[in-house]
Amino acid sequence: MTFGQRFEDRARASQFPICLGLDPRIDDMPRSIIEAARQQGSQDAAITYAVVRFHELAIAAVADLVPAVKLQLAFYEQYGVAGMVALRETISIAHRNKLLVIADGKRNDIGSTAAAYARAFLGGASAFGELIPAFNADAVTVNPWLGRDSITPFVETARKYDRGVFLLLHTSNPSAVEFQEARVNGEPLFLMISRLADELGEELPSEGRFSSVGGIVGCTFPEAATIIRSAVPSTPIIVVGYGAQAGGLDGCTACFTEQGDGALVNASRSLTYSWPAQIRDEEDIVSTIRERVLRMGNELARGCRAARPEPWSERQF
Amino acid sequence: MTFGQRFEDRARASQFPICLGLDPRIDDMPRSIIEAARQQGSQDAAITYAVVRFHELAIAAVADLVPAVKLQLAFYEQYGVAGMVALRETISIAHRNKLLVIADGKRNDIGSTAAAYARAFLGGASAFGELIPAFNADAVTVNPWLGRDSITPFVETARKYDRGVFLLLHTSNPSAVEFQEARVNGEPLFLMISRLADELGEELPSEGRFSSVGGIVGCTFPEAATIIRSAVPSTPIIVVGYGAQAGGLDGCTACFTEQGDGALVNASRSLTYSWPAQIRDEEDIVSTIRERVLRMGNELARGCRAARPEPWSERQF
Repeated sequence: MTFGQRFEDRARASQFPICLGLDPRIDDMPRSIIEAARQQGSQDAAITYAVVRFHELAIAAVADLVPAVKLQLAFYEQYGVAGMVALRETISIAHRNKLLVIADGKRNDIGSTAAAYARAFLGGASAFGELIPAFNADAVTVNPWLGRDSITPFVETARKYDRGVFLLLHTSNPSAVEFQEARVNGEPLFLMISRLADELGEELPSEGRFSSVGGIVGCTFPEAATIIRSAVPSTPIIVVGYGAQAGGLDGCTACFTEQGDGALVNASRSLTYSWPAQIRDEEDIVSTIRERVLRMGNELARGCRAARPEPWSERQF
Repeated sequence: MTFGQRFEDRARASQFPICLGLDPRIDDMPRSIIEAARQQGSQDAAITYAVVRFHELAIAAVADLVPAVKLQLAFYEQYGVAGMVALRETISIAHRNKLLVIADGKRNDIGSTAAAYARAFLGGASAFGELIPAFNADAVTVNPWLGRDSITPFVETARKYDRGVFLLLHTSNPSAVEFQEARVNGEPLFLMISRLADELGEELPSEGRFSSVGGIVGCTFPEAATIIRSAVPSTPIIVVGYGAQAGGLDGCTACFTEQGDGALVNASRSLTYSWPAQIRDEEDIVSTIRERVLRMGNELARGCRAARPEPWSERQF
């Protein structure tokens, strides 16, 4: 089954179009996790334990509510090899819980190096005549700045292994306007890149309404989000910047299709960090994350219904 | 000592302004490495052994000739955790041999995530009250597409730990023209980004002629290289695309300053792969890589002298 089809199916089967961001920040984890981690035999074991156990709980809290997790690779890499072990384990746990895994690495390079990144996250490298699965995600995020020939190696690997690619279409940070909104012949670059995502998606097999080449769109720029969604109706979108970055509902709503689907709204810190001191045990962690996801889901539902009542009054949330 | 100063000093003390690219491709390594790797106890151990041992030999071959190595992170990540162990070990070996280590990851993200990438490669993350050094390079390459606020977290970490940042100014692939040469108010984006590198470099302390915010420039676009170098005379440059990508000498020459310094020309595959079948043992590997570096160094010297005799007739190579 193509990634686009899985994206559509999983979203339909889930209560909320939310993507849970798993960005490990050990020093901000609840005390019970830290204390258990300190019992491990070494610093490396403590790091891996904390990240894996915390994500195991977060995934248990929401696996029946949301279709996907997005793993911010920077936060694993900052902990070195122990962090990369935790990345591999977190991906396995998410897959055991039937969640789509987006490796958010914003990777990019040319030719054979882009192909190596694609192997790292979407397929596997060969060594000694065997396939090494490395970090086995369903999709990887790609920075498009190096142009088409730097993106096609990811698309080819996605084709081979039925995986997905998400191009950065418009990011959520204030400086996104500097280069991404630069206009060439009157058109902003982010629109050219959105069309490129659409075109590359056309080249992959597709069984459903959505292609396997998606986009990352910041909800902090609702106008850009509106332009993007109307230009690329069959591109799956991960919406970023909601919650922690004070992004608005308008930008989220704009990323859904006329039918009220095709987008997942990501939130990371706002769901999984800022722990009150009274959090005691693992049960508290699970219930708190679940409550926060339910609250965000309801906020989104209200916002979406207010913006365009038509599709959402019939949807599951 | 600032990174810019170390860049200048190491280049001056080396015979050739060459950066050795270490991009592990296990299946293309010489047979003797593969055979020794197969004797290791597990697949992971075999991967780590092959990458580390091959790089140990490559570094031994050239440590007295060149000032720096550039590690293409994609080629380590493709081998999963075992590849990341090899990355950490390769960095240590390069440092023991007094080489500057450029982590070529083309990392990019916003705010706190960019800071996590910076910690991963330039400093260290904190966990359980200790500093985790992760992957301890001298500089990291950064894709500038997300704009200034996505680059400053790298610059701040570089300041804190006396490290460097190399922005992608103009890449070497054919599609580089698509977005990087897009013109805004008549000026190509790569020039705007070069000026940004210069400006951010000014904000860091500098003891020598070169700043600690450098640039990556493809030698396959000599005109762009000329524009960049004349706009940013104190930006250290790593030249890419020489050799394997059929890049020309003109583009390399253009990246050096009027004084004949300020640039290192990277080559990876052309120095370390395409092994003839008769390569038998580790001594052969060392001598072959050394010969190739000497040949490339002499080619560069002839090309540079032909282009601008003035500075290079007095230089060491």
